[in-house]
Amino acid sequence: MWNEIDQHMQHWIREAGERIRDAFQTKLKIETKSSPSDLVTNVDREIEQFFIERIRQTYPTHRILGEEGFGDTLEALDGIVWIIDPIDGTMNFVHQQRHFAISVGVFQDGVGMLGYIYDVAFDELYYAQKGKGAFVNGTPLPPLEKTSLDCAIISLNATWVTENRRIDPNVLAPLVKKARGTRSYGSAALEMAYIASGKLDAYITLRLSPWDIAGGMVIVQEVGGMVTNLYGEPLNMIEKSSVFVSKPGLHEEVLAIIQR
Amino acid sequence: MWNEIDQHMQHWIREAGERIRDAFQTKLKIETKSSPSDLVTNVDREIEQFFIERIRQTYPTHRILGEEGFGDTLEALDGIVWIIDPIDGTMNFVHQQRHFAISVGVFQDGVGMLGYIYDVAFDELYYAQKGKGAFVNGTPLPPLEKTSLDCAIISLNATWVTENRRIDPNVLAPLVKKARGTRSYGSAALEMAYIASGKLDAYITLRLSPWDIAGGMVIVQEVGGMVTNLYGEPLNMIEKSSVFVSKPGLHEEVLAIIQR
Repeated sequence: MWNEIDQHMQHWIREAGERIRDAFQTKLKIETKSSPSDLVTNVDREIEQFFIERIRQTYPTHRILGEEGFGDTLEALDGIVWIIDPIDGTMNFVHQQRHFAISVGVFQDGVGMLGYIYDVAFDELYYAQKGKGAFVNGTPLPPLEKTSLDCAIISLNATWVTENRRIDPNVLAPLVKKARGTRSYGSAALEMAYIASGKLDAYITLRLSPWDIAGGMVIVQEVGGMVTNLYGEPLNMIEKSSVFVSKPGLHEEVLAIIQR
Repeated sequence: MWNEIDQHMQHWIREAGERIRDAFQTKLKIETKSSPSDLVTNVDREIEQFFIERIRQTYPTHRILGEEGFGDTLEALDGIVWIIDPIDGTMNFVHQQRHFAISVGVFQDGVGMLGYIYDVAFDELYYAQKGKGAFVNGTPLPPLEKTSLDCAIISLNATWVTENRRIDPNVLAPLVKKARGTRSYGSAALEMAYIASGKLDAYITLRLSPWDIAGGMVIVQEVGGMVTNLYGEPLNMIEKSSVFVSKPGLHEEVLAIIQR
């Protein structure tokens, strides 16, 4: 069954990417949601509806959790649940027409079975099936190697080391100093794809929703990476949470610094 | 004369890019320079030598300032000077095989006449000739529009808002809070190319060398962007400096916050 779902999804996600690239030619309708920096466009909504239509037609018993709210309201992850972010990194989509991704995870009774992150602008599809390996555009991703903080590039937005509502800026500041480098790309899905493919070593953020991480979680875990909250605990895929994604080895080193 | 130099350079830079992409197939020799995060590879050195050989052969009277030190030692910018960074974003080159660029500026008596930023991994060549417009892969870049901080994406590494040797972290922290978003890509050249093409609105960093910015400066200024140090003063292209690159309007707004 998972192979069949995977085949459908690979087809749908590339079709959705095509629609998004076509949308670059038209004028976007941009609105703000919870804050001036929380953007949504007509394309986010149309792409979520595109996926939901396809899934409901083919798998009417599956449930769907989508960022834009066209799916189901879920209180638990029993059965098969699709978790969808039609455009992760909407601000990048609006400002840059790149550095955003479609992110989809398919979970069974809370366990991530399939994960997809599609970098639409550069046509790179990262995907994994639990136990069957992770790939980018058909090329297998090798298992992640252990690394240490002084050789690591960490993705960490400057927000979290300046005054903010979620964390004391001094907690994460030592990481900036000790890491080889810090970056910030503005798309959790892409940042997780970069970890899975060895381009980044860790990613830390303080407020993500399940749809931001569902696809990436399956892919990162399939290559041996760690996905927890900032305190090393498993993520609850129904709630917003802090997120800490990392190569092995580095995960323990960073947690020790955070908990100091 | 500038058209002729431009034609040579467009040819050389794409040939250099080809060599760099070929180098992905071979094992890099990586060394550190001033610090563990200041990386250099055999490819940085080979590409600088490649450019210097071509330039000396074709323009024996021109002088060359190169990051890896194979050029001339300059005390002033009189005459025609090529300012070259063979790989800007070497850490990205090593870790990611993307998000780095070849950067070249050609100056006459201190005035930037030609600028090139080549995003090798994605084959995007940004270039400009003073007074003749800026382009990416042949497509003209439109003049930059005025913008304000609350609608701006600023590229600013987390280093500069945590304890560091160059600036009080409280100076730039208000920008993180007031901007629509912050990013960090780890290549000054690419960050300037992103400003020139409207993908970013401002870029701030505290320690750059002339080769990091020479190419980008010509391109950004050609589309109406501002390139100064962090205090709004013109850059001295012989020394290391802070750098603040921005769309018009935003430049004044940010300087007022910094100087508060």
